[in-house]
Amino acid sequence: MSDMPESVVIREVGPRDGLQNEDPIPTEAKVRLLDALSGTGVRRIEAVSFVHPKAIPQMADADEVWRRAAKVDGVRYSALVPNTRGAQRALAAGFTEIEVVVSASDTHNRRNVNRSTDESLDDIAALIDLLHSAGATAEVIVATSFGCPYEGDVDPARVAAIVDRVVADGADRVAFGDTTGMGTPRRVRELLTAVRDRNAQVPVLLHFHNTRGTALANLLTALELGVTEFDASVGGLGGCPYAPGASGNLATEEAVHMLHDMGIDTGIDLAALLDAAALAERLVGRQLPSGVLRAGPRDRLTPRSA
Amino acid sequence: MSDMPESVVIREVGPRDGLQNEDPIPTEAKVRLLDALSGTGVRRIEAVSFVHPKAIPQMADADEVWRRAAKVDGVRYSALVPNTRGAQRALAAGFTEIEVVVSASDTHNRRNVNRSTDESLDDIAALIDLLHSAGATAEVIVATSFGCPYEGDVDPARVAAIVDRVVADGADRVAFGDTTGMGTPRRVRELLTAVRDRNAQVPVLLHFHNTRGTALANLLTALELGVTEFDASVGGLGGCPYAPGASGNLATEEAVHMLHDMGIDTGIDLAALLDAAALAERLVGRQLPSGVLRAGPRDRLTPRSA
Repeated sequence: MSDMPESVVIREVGPRDGLQNEDPIPTEAKVRLLDALSGTGVRRIEAVSFVHPKAIPQMADADEVWRRAAKVDGVRYSALVPNTRGAQRALAAGFTEIEVVVSASDTHNRRNVNRSTDESLDDIAALIDLLHSAGATAEVIVATSFGCPYEGDVDPARVAAIVDRVVADGADRVAFGDTTGMGTPRRVRELLTAVRDRNAQVPVLLHFHNTRGTALANLLTALELGVTEFDASVGGLGGCPYAPGASGNLATEEAVHMLHDMGIDTGIDLAALLDAAALAERLVGRQLPSGVLRAGPRDRLTPRSA
Repeated sequence: MSDMPESVVIREVGPRDGLQNEDPIPTEAKVRLLDALSGTGVRRIEAVSFVHPKAIPQMADADEVWRRAAKVDGVRYSALVPNTRGAQRALAAGFTEIEVVVSASDTHNRRNVNRSTDESLDDIAALIDLLHSAGATAEVIVATSFGCPYEGDVDPARVAAIVDRVVADGADRVAFGDTTGMGTPRRVRELLTAVRDRNAQVPVLLHFHNTRGTALANLLTALELGVTEFDASVGGLGGCPYAPGASGNLATEEAVHMLHDMGIDTGIDLAALLDAAALAERLVGRQLPSGVLRAGPRDRLTPRSA
């Protein structure tokens, strides 16, 4: 355990990645969830995405949600954009940290955006320039980094080559998405090794799904390899609508619960986070797949008289 | 990964620990499940318990289940017993590997059997003698080894002292149960360190629950520390009726899926195991909490035309 980081940054993605993959909820409810999360002590929040409202009606009110949400000091908020139009909207809304996505799997990328991975990388190069010229940073999220539901294994060397490309094009950070929960400790180790052999300095963030139960084992492996930034989604909100069989973003409270028990700081008040998870559950109206929300943290005791 | 074991032994506990904590199912169904599991290549199966039928009606037909079940070469079958009467029944039924339980938490032990931990350890000493004199081995399962729902943290030194005692009394093996899913990688490391400082040679087995999402992270930690025997329950059958908030034995297929991806042999045919998990789900008539059963293993691809 001596090699573990003392502190990690959790990026809470429930308001965007989570809600984008649930049935639409009212604007007011989105603002409430964002504000609840902003009060937990979390250091980063992916707040909204600026996508076409016909493609993703869940985010049609992104401008209004963001305008009404509290902007809390010390929280870094970000937005995800699919293209130039989205980038312009995000910049106009005041975002200075912006994410774009490409899939490491050509098949998966084509099914999402009807373009090859290479074509999307060309688009992203132009987007990075646009964002930088407006004073914003650009994070490239590489989806299906640990496997593709259509193609199967994704060669870590292919992902590393994508990192080469986007770093050369100016990406400020890279995130690796386990889009359909195909990640395992072995795959995490292989991917990080392949990427670092070539781009040791690029900041990386990992985004795990718990589809096959491996999310916290993957996180543990990444911690051992020195990764200190992770996505997680309050209550386990969301999944991926384009990925058959996908389910379950890693629940933020499950990640925080384990990290805190290991003595790793996140800045997050777990009790406040559990309140936010309970709120998320009420807002979407279905039971969320979060064990810590169900059972409580390990230090919540049962009365002996029970 | 180089320190990882090449092979681990999974003890399948679904037929006993799993079914004991589900609504009762017919004898015929129990035999079907046992036989399906015996055909998966699994190396150990906890088949039944010999308990009082009024206390645990789910196991009232243990003798008949065991008589009718196929005994497959190469599979080590075991039974759990609570007392002398149970031990006599298990021996009469032909079992040569027998488990007894004590809780590391005094409060938890008293609520289970109305005796202190020390009183139960006295009983267990006598049971070990009885089993050994009949030519059987005795495994002591230490429940609440990673925390107690009533008392909270359980001092690893207390668990290690229990191990001292049962090893001195002749126990052949020791298992550590995470009865209500309070285990984390930190707790696994602390417990194994405490036990090994005093009893380096005793064979140990770990039994994790996924109540708070940590089961596979715990398993990974234990692998790194050289543990090579684990309990798991097909489909995630069962929990613990005496432990409020408890849920979800680690699903065997989730453990096997991760282990195989790491190149660690279990002897188990994952496809056959998934068939057994699907059977278990049909037999108990509720959806079981197994991601690999839901989503399939990571190499089960989605047709590109889907």
